[in-house]
Amino acid sequence: MTEDRKPVLGIGLVGHAFMGRAHSQAWRSVAAFFDPPLTPVMAALAGRSRERAAAAAAALGWAAVETDWKDLLRRDDVQLVDICTPGDSHAEIAVAALAAGKHVLCEKPLANSVAEAETMAAAARAARARGVRAMVGFNYRRVPAVALARRLVADGRLGRIHHVRAQYLQDWLVDPEYPLVWRLDARKAGSGALGDIGAHIIDTAQYITGDLIVGVSALTETFVKERPLAADAAGLAATADGAARGPVTVDDAALFIGRTAGGALASFEATRFATGRKNALRIEVNGSAGSLAFDFEAMNELWFHDRTDEPAAAGFRRILVTEPEHPYAGAWWPAGHGLGYEHAFTHQVADLLTAIADGTDPAPSFEDGLQVQRVLEAVARSAASGSGWTPVEQPQPAAT
Amino acid sequence: MTEDRKPVLGIGLVGHAFMGRAHSQAWRSVAAFFDPPLTPVMAALAGRSRERAAAAAAALGWAAVETDWKDLLRRDDVQLVDICTPGDSHAEIAVAALAAGKHVLCEKPLANSVAEAETMAAAARAARARGVRAMVGFNYRRVPAVALARRLVADGRLGRIHHVRAQYLQDWLVDPEYPLVWRLDARKAGSGALGDIGAHIIDTAQYITGDLIVGVSALTETFVKERPLAADAAGLAATADGAARGPVTVDDAALFIGRTAGGALASFEATRFATGRKNALRIEVNGSAGSLAFDFEAMNELWFHDRTDEPAAAGFRRILVTEPEHPYAGAWWPAGHGLGYEHAFTHQVADLLTAIADGTDPAPSFEDGLQVQRVLEAVARSAASGSGWTPVEQPQPAAT
Amino acid sequence: MTEDRKPVLGIGLVGHAFMGRAHSQAWRSVAAFFDPPLTPVMAALAGRSRERAAAAAAALGWAAVETDWKDLLRRDDVQLVDICTPGDSHAEIAVAALAAGKHVLCEKPLANSVAEAETMAAAARAARARGVRAMVGFNYRRVPAVALARRLVADGRLGRIHHVRAQYLQDWLVDPEYPLVWRLDARKAGSGALGDIGAHIIDTAQYITGDLIVGVSALTETFVKERPLAADAAGLAATADGAARGPVTVDDAALFIGRTAGGALASFEATRFATGRKNALRIEVNGSAGSLAFDFEAMNELWFHDRTDEPAAAGFRRILVTEPEHPYAGAWWPAGHGLGYEHAFTHQVADLLTAIADGTDPAPSFEDGLQVQRVLEAVARSAASGSGWTPVEQPQPAAT
Amino acid sequence: MTEDRKPVLGIGLVGHAFMGRAHSQAWRSVAAFFDPPLTPVMAALAGRSRERAAAAAAALGWAAVETDWKDLLRRDDVQLVDICTPGDSHAEIAVAALAAGKHVLCEKPLANSVAEAETMAAAARAARARGVRAMVGFNYRRVPAVALARRLVADGRLGRIHHVRAQYLQDWLVDPEYPLVWRLDARKAGSGALGDIGAHIIDTAQYITGDLIVGVSALTETFVKERPLAADAAGLAATADGAARGPVTVDDAALFIGRTAGGALASFEATRFATGRKNALRIEVNGSAGSLAFDFEAMNELWFHDRTDEPAAAGFRRILVTEPEHPYAGAWWPAGHGLGYEHAFTHQVADLLTAIADGTDPAPSFEDGLQVQRVLEAVARSAASGSGWTPVEQPQPAAT
Repeated sequence: MTEDRKPVLGIGLVGHAFMGRAHSQAWRSVAAFFDPPLTPVMAALAGRSRERAAAAAAALGWAAVETDWKDLLRRDDVQLVDICTPGDSHAEIAVAALAAGKHVLCEKPLANSVAEAETMAAAARAARARGVRAMVGFNYRRVPAVALARRLVADGRLGRIHHVRAQYLQDWLVDPEYPLVWRLDARKAGSGALGDIGAHIIDTAQYITGDLIVGVSALTETFVKERPLAADAAGLAATADGAARGPVTVDDAALFIGRTAGGALASFEATRFATGRKNALRIEVNGSAGSLAFDFEAMNELWFHDRTDEPAAAGFRRILVTEPEHPYAGAWWPAGHGLGYEHAFTHQVADLLTAIADGTDPAPSFEDGLQVQRVLEAVARSAASGSGWTPVEQPQPAAT
Repeated sequence: MTEDRKPVLGIGLVGHAFMGRAHSQAWRSVAAFFDPPLTPVMAALAGRSRERAAAAAAALGWAAVETDWKDLLRRDDVQLVDICTPGDSHAEIAVAALAAGKHVLCEKPLANSVAEAETMAAAARAARARGVRAMVGFNYRRVPAVALARRLVADGRLGRIHHVRAQYLQDWLVDPEYPLVWRLDARKAGSGALGDIGAHIIDTAQYITGDLIVGVSALTETFVKERPLAADAAGLAATADGAARGPVTVDDAALFIGRTAGGALASFEATRFATGRKNALRIEVNGSAGSLAFDFEAMNELWFHDRTDEPAAAGFRRILVTEPEHPYAGAWWPAGHGLGYEHAFTHQVADLLTAIADGTDPAPSFEDGLQVQRVLEAVARSAASGSGWTPVEQPQPAAT
Repeated sequence: MTEDRKPVLGIGLVGHAFMGRAHSQAWRSVAAFFDPPLTPVMAALAGRSRERAAAAAAALGWAAVETDWKDLLRRDDVQLVDICTPGDSHAEIAVAALAAGKHVLCEKPLANSVAEAETMAAAARAARARGVRAMVGFNYRRVPAVALARRLVADGRLGRIHHVRAQYLQDWLVDPEYPLVWRLDARKAGSGALGDIGAHIIDTAQYITGDLIVGVSALTETFVKERPLAADAAGLAATADGAARGPVTVDDAALFIGRTAGGALASFEATRFATGRKNALRIEVNGSAGSLAFDFEAMNELWFHDRTDEPAAAGFRRILVTEPEHPYAGAWWPAGHGLGYEHAFTHQVADLLTAIADGTDPAPSFEDGLQVQRVLEAVARSAASGSGWTPVEQPQPAAT
Repeated sequence: MTEDRKPVLGIGLVGHAFMGRAHSQAWRSVAAFFDPPLTPVMAALAGRSRERAAAAAAALGWAAVETDWKDLLRRDDVQLVDICTPGDSHAEIAVAALAAGKHVLCEKPLANSVAEAETMAAAARAARARGVRAMVGFNYRRVPAVALARRLVADGRLGRIHHVRAQYLQDWLVDPEYPLVWRLDARKAGSGALGDIGAHIIDTAQYITGDLIVGVSALTETFVKERPLAADAAGLAATADGAARGPVTVDDAALFIGRTAGGALASFEATRFATGRKNALRIEVNGSAGSLAFDFEAMNELWFHDRTDEPAAAGFRRILVTEPEHPYAGAWWPAGHGLGYEHAFTHQVADLLTAIADGTDPAPSFEDGLQVQRVLEAVARSAASGSGWTPVEQPQPAAT
């Protein structure tokens, strides 16, 4: 009976684990709240196991299943490929999809190395010339509180930025018996806390401040060097009995300090060993005119201190970011009715659909993802070389 | 391609405003996260304006549209009627739907009067004998933190309850120029803050403690007696120019103190004049063995004090209610990835689908809704009679 | 060597328990921080046991000891009597001291009954005509955050007040084996939580809002009816063995709702059964232009919401009340260096010394204390009569 | 009339600014709350201006005045010298006082250089052999919440420590017109935020964890390079008119990351440019069995997460550190009645008096102060050399 006459956009999803579920909920919900200019159609889901992919498709609402992502690219009913696989396959899938004329939404980190990311960014530049769009999924940018933070900075409410301190604290590896999942394997994940959650705070900090990190000094550590093999990682070790262990080949925690192009001092910490902190993506920014603080564990709140307030009544304001005046919030519920984790993914695809319809470039771009990758690499190099000061590689002018 | 072979349950929705949107998102999402034994099918939406109903159906994902809720009852593809209209129509729709053999989910408050609620409860009792289920939508029960609170009380972690203090604070009426919407019209809404949000804290308090309010002493107030007519309420006044005002016929705020059957002292406050509080449904419970505190404005947190903790390390624990061990939370995301307002509606329909499939009665029942209505009536009578002590009417044994 | 040439004021203290210690610290500290126009001299302490009084005097810094408070009144080196005894002796001591020409600082509650309080207020009026000053010790008024709250209201920052909700939550009686101390004996204490801590929130609410409670509806409860005799209360029971118990003759908790002269709705709760709350004197005030919230357990913070803030950046501000612009704070330490419980007592005597030197009346006056007593009495009468609405007795014009 | 027969200890204070006032309040208050084995007598205060010193002595309660600290050393009624001057004079005064047989309490940082600190530590060792005691004033150790934090770590409640993150955030230099006070002059203060407040978080972190920092990588910055001359700093510039400015010769902010001997990663930040943060000494410690968090802006609270709590009821506990079971708190007021900034100084002298009476060494010792100085120096060297990894110098075995 649907009278919706807006053009549709067929979506093909690669991967149906944690990120695949979050992205599916976004595609499923976006039209109910955001009135996007294109109506997404959940055309097909690709997963290696047909059985598991079919079960996921049924639960998550995808109309068809493929067992090879390459087959997604051949489907006429797919105009956008949404990549929710581990980082080691991002480059191959994204480059092929863009080459096939499909728009791409790629989960972060963009890639597992700068070289891969450069290839992807080049592919995105080439595709852009043909009207094909690419976006990297730094979802936290679209938490309303984070988007409001950026707006306050952009509006000059913080003045000159002096300090950025960002942490991403989790604790799921504190137990030394937690198994050796793919996120602990450098071949799959590239790095550990650094690339997984460190990438988020790098992007979030740069996004909020509109400023880039130009150099770092870093430390990384792997507190637990060996872990029991995961059921699905038996290939990592010769023996597969219950006691078999394999080496953790990524960092458990990464710390770095740095400077930004704008002259701020910055401090970053990403760890999976912060007992009691579950998903504490925290950022505090101090400027000459004001300050901001955010913690994802209270994701609907932004704390803002306005230095121009009269001194006797000044203080950090706990802004409940659920008002119609706030980014994204008005599309959902009345004030005070908070949003949850997956809403940022819905905002992400709402903006992406709008960009595709408008023929503009969505942000964050693959170039943005590449720049984060360059920071990650500088951190890794500094940590590997006695914490020495390591400039972040600057982009080369694109050959045109 | 969907291989889901579970039985389906056709849903018909009446109303597509705030509550209709929240319920739609629940029906749309439940199968992706909860693996319910029945798969809901969003069959039809009823709304008086065909144009607006059709637009809503398209956006929210309903397959068909009706302009009279009675037509929903005649549809074979509808087995459950979900009532999201103002309170004055609940009784008629629910009674008719149950009589037609449709399961019913009815928004709260159950009705606008005890008499209506009694009729509805009687209809639910009769329907139950035929395997037809009825549930009233006190959604806050299914916020994970609230459900956890109940579990802690039920497990004896609070001991004997001494105190319950509950507040539901909003501020959307502080501006005297806010228009005279239907919620301010006693004929539509029954009462003001009392029935709209007071009903929620009465239910939540009774649900968490497992104890019932037996008597009250109350005050109500209407701070702003007249307001500009709303665009859609022009019928309320002879003149319809911009300056036309009409009387507010409901309370702006309601306060009451009371006692529970279990011997606790209780304090309640519902208001739409609490400047700066947006949706602060707060409850604190103090028992001989522990205490609990909750505020919906930080809906993923439950505060728990365990009096058996060693004194030197005791304190209210900020439980982030996002762990697999917590009610509902495990179905969604990893720990620390909070939920939002509408998730409780998804939990509500997940439990309802399970109850229908299992042939058990879902909670809260219409009897539960009736009991809340009796408390509301006692509050209104006390307030109307100089705050005198007013026992809550006890249910009569059902004639069988 | 002291070159201080300011006039001195001799202080005589009656009682050296909790309040006596707090007042002593105030007298000892005031000159170091506030440059008062009169220099207090800690002349003599009165206590019934010479031995214990002498030990207290040595520790607390009092130069002499008396065993009868009447002897304090005869001392030429005492110009002010500071009454820190239980409430049953306040009237006798204060009236006699004022008659003897001594200024009086009397702990709260002013008395154990309205009749006593009226006598005291009359004595204060008579003394005032002779330049003798009387003050009642509602110390919480002089917590900087509370004084700032009053200033914000007085400056119109809250607009018209709609709501006051105040709680004073403690938990020291949750254990049923806690002994029957004097505070649980109506003859000594007058009432229980009501007079002890309820008096504080009544005064604090009225002080902050500048508005008076005009009627109430109340509930009180004694959860534990009998308790073990305290070592020093053996006289209460015939047998003095370990198992001896005596009746608790005061309330454990008191709740009331009411209205103010200015048209606000108010809600109050005082309890010693709020497990996990230690000294939670909390008050929230909602007005048409803003709101305030305070909790003594975070005594250096005042939360303020300014409704005139731009909507996108509005929120409750956590004001750290330690700035030079804040009441009292500038006399102590740099910003951010918080104060503690006893500092309010130092502020109290600083203001009292200034008032005496200036020949003005200190606040809160005995009339203020009497008015609080009238509210307490209305609460007790309402609770004793089925929570019926009970107007607060209005002061009679003084016979002149 | 004082019957106190405990031995007395004459105190001589050098300096009467911020720290002198705080120490005075401690000496004045300690006997009233802690029953120390020695009764301190506030014998004499030394200050360069007789007039200002006399005024301070009168206000703060010192019996005599000296204009040269050397004269304090000659007084028979002075047995302990309390040094509250800027860091550049610590070494000279402390060494002389110890040589004169006076116990010494010296404010932090112990000195302005490692060389000075080594001299002082050597003097303290020599004095110790003669029964003369030396203590450095890291007052934050004796905030009850900090002392409780150490106890929890020492009791094994945190397990193996993985992370320490400490910040000391102030904002009093954000205004570029704030004058060039002595704390901004390297000759007086040694360094800026680093030595002033960075020293505190280094000591606090090491104290709580019982673990030492072994190497660092650091950044420092001076955001505002020139400031108006302060009234009392005219000597810094040739011209003394209102517009005269001088160079800021210390850091405005210092960040560093490091490792501890026990294998933890640590992150530190000290700044005077954190707009809206007034005295936010924050520390968070994550261990294998639990975590702790503290912020001095809420100084009566310690947050503790116990990983052994049942998962469904686990969370950071907000411990209100005011119970009799908590360090120092029982000496003051009932539970929930918080302490303020200066109380830690009272605790400091209470412990110092006990150590002197008992013939034991008070902590923190001058060796502890020297070790902090070595960390400060490593930070400065790393910052000066491109953030390179810089080991903290280890103490040499004392020549005996």
